[in-house]
Amino acid sequence: MYGLIGRMIAAPGKRDELLAAMSGGTSGMPGCLSYVIALDRENPDALWVTEVWDSAESHKASLSLPAVREAIAKARPIIAGFDNRVETIPVSGLGLQGAK
Amino acid sequence: MYGLIGRMIAAPGKRDELLAAMSGGTSGMPGCLSYVIALDRENPDALWVTEVWDSAESHKASLSLPAVREAIAKARPIIAGFDNRVETIPVSGLGLQGAK
Repeated sequence: MYGLIGRMIAAPGKRDELLAAMSGGTSGMPGCLSYVIALDRENPDALWVTEVWDSAESHKASLSLPAVREAIAKARPIIAGFDNRVETIPVSGLGLQGAK
Repeated sequence: MYGLIGRMIAAPGKRDELLAAMSGGTSGMPGCLSYVIALDRENPDALWVTEVWDSAESHKASLSLPAVREAIAKARPIIAGFDNRVETIPVSGLGLQGAK
């Protein structure tokens, strides 16, 4: 499995708009076992995204899906930056939809 | 919802043993919507744990469950440290078991 953890910083005051843009593209992505968007408790402009995929290839392919491309196009103008990005190898878990 | 992201550092060479100890206690925890354990790609002693709970109270209560206490007792002697700990507020996601 392939995992991603990262933080996304919205342009000031744009977190809700960024969250709406992101949430639109996250269903029906082949190979996506978990995709969670969470608010940072301290930074009012930051979102945490934690993802689990059945493979890195599935993750990469998702970036070409129409709904994902549309979400990225909406989000890009209101993203100020990314940090805390980590790629992981998920090995066990609860809430992994049909993980092999 | 209540989210946790953090990294756990095993004593040198003990990651597999720590993983086995951790994996034993993660099923049947009331209010746990997602619990993923992943290997750090760079540090051979590190595990990432990402959790989503329906509330902070459910998370706290889980620490008293017999299976969790047993897992913690097994794990504690082979844990060298924790870092990158972040509490979050999950707001949307895929793979959240029965999230309200």
